[in-house]
Amino acid sequence: MIRWKLTIEYKGTIYSGWQRQTEAPSVQQAIEEAITAFCGQNITIHVAGRTDAGVHARGQVAHFDLDYGGRALSGFELMKALNAHLVTQETCVLKAETVPDDFHARFSATNKLYRYRILNRSAFPSIEAGLAWHIKQPLDVRSMQIAAKNLVGYHDFTTFRDSECQAKSPMKTLDRLDISACDYDVAGGVEIMIEAEGRSFLHHQMRNIAGTLSLVGHGKWKPDDVKKALEAKDRTKGGPTAPPEGLYLVRVDYE
Amino acid sequence: MIRWKLTIEYKGTIYSGWQRQTEAPSVQQAIEEAITAFCGQNITIHVAGRTDAGVHARGQVAHFDLDYGGRALSGFELMKALNAHLVTQETCVLKAETVPDDFHARFSATNKLYRYRILNRSAFPSIEAGLAWHIKQPLDVRSMQIAAKNLVGYHDFTTFRDSECQAKSPMKTLDRLDISACDYDVAGGVEIMIEAEGRSFLHHQMRNIAGTLSLVGHGKWKPDDVKKALEAKDRTKGGPTAPPEGLYLVRVDYE
Repeated sequence: MIRWKLTIEYKGTIYSGWQRQTEAPSVQQAIEEAITAFCGQNITIHVAGRTDAGVHARGQVAHFDLDYGGRALSGFELMKALNAHLVTQETCVLKAETVPDDFHARFSATNKLYRYRILNRSAFPSIEAGLAWHIKQPLDVRSMQIAAKNLVGYHDFTTFRDSECQAKSPMKTLDRLDISACDYDVAGGVEIMIEAEGRSFLHHQMRNIAGTLSLVGHGKWKPDDVKKALEAKDRTKGGPTAPPEGLYLVRVDYE
Repeated sequence: MIRWKLTIEYKGTIYSGWQRQTEAPSVQQAIEEAITAFCGQNITIHVAGRTDAGVHARGQVAHFDLDYGGRALSGFELMKALNAHLVTQETCVLKAETVPDDFHARFSATNKLYRYRILNRSAFPSIEAGLAWHIKQPLDVRSMQIAAKNLVGYHDFTTFRDSECQAKSPMKTLDRLDISACDYDVAGGVEIMIEAEGRSFLHHQMRNIAGTLSLVGHGKWKPDDVKKALEAKDRTKGGPTAPPEGLYLVRVDYE
């Protein structure tokens, strides 16, 4: 039995999310079916961080155990074989590598990087439809940056936690929350990127942070209002949940 | 009568190209229908550079004349109105502005910037399916850069010209042809960008250059072979035509 670690990229648009559902396509199902098509075995894969419907991944990680009989299998071979079966999907395997038996995609993770993309211009996205949150009114990025500082560190993130979140505790450490802006097109359109790093995140935490920061960007909230919302420890005191299409799980780090 | 200049973005995947066709959707048709829906008039728009099926634009330019009756119409209003009608399309208007009567999207253009994107990794593109040419084998970017130098300047580009090209002369000046590479993903995937600037281009010139440079990247051609191909002035001595999905018309400049 060999434990394999997969690094996975997907466009979340057509999926009901990472997790298998009985009546809707999922990333987990796509990959598990590719593994079955390759080796003939029914395998369950374990993921670093489940993503919701419409959320993308540039570097999701999952692991599974495989008994492939006698012949040695290289990571490159396994990646190519899985991609040959995935090619009709919007999911691909970037890398396959063997890991020790005690490696766990979720529990061994030491850090995750999420990115939330906002396309800030009047015209809707054409080339990148479904790949960013489209906000028409110009946002005040400087105020969003000031507001974001309130959320870095070890806090009770109840205000930014979905009511269906299954985590035992709302206490999390956000190690980094940076906001940057750059030119997106030739006509003054701007892309705003919110990047967050931490060991683990609550359900919808990143989307609730992005939605709340958008209120600051619109000038409806002052940067200090984000601090008050955090301290209220009450989801109803936070901003809206930003849509899934702007969110990317970029990277998962391990020791 | 007021002459309007439109700056346009589109994802070329679903279109048969810029130009109107009787039985296939085109970008020209999408925009002309949006103009008609807005003002009730049948208008013909004139483009800076026609693009083929599957080719994208980040900054295409077109112009048209509109008699909108008494009320003054701002560029921002026109852009918003056209986008309201285009929202079911993969085309949007980034900017609308009035220009002098002697402005012509094609004939007044002084420079165009094309970009050709290659996704160089084993795994197929998922998030950006249709938005880059996927080449699995690692390309030698340094050799491609050396080879590209042979094409900069005023040359007879017959070798890189489609047999159906309608330009009067194969003589063109390529002012810039730069190749750069950067990390694309967390697992060693590379994006290679070929950028070309010049006043005008022959039909398929950019795709034929990209296809030829890919032979150098693969090591099948030496950089000097590109010089020999250019000097042969014979399309059959050039490399293959790279697929449309990697090509973007990025920007058109005017005085």
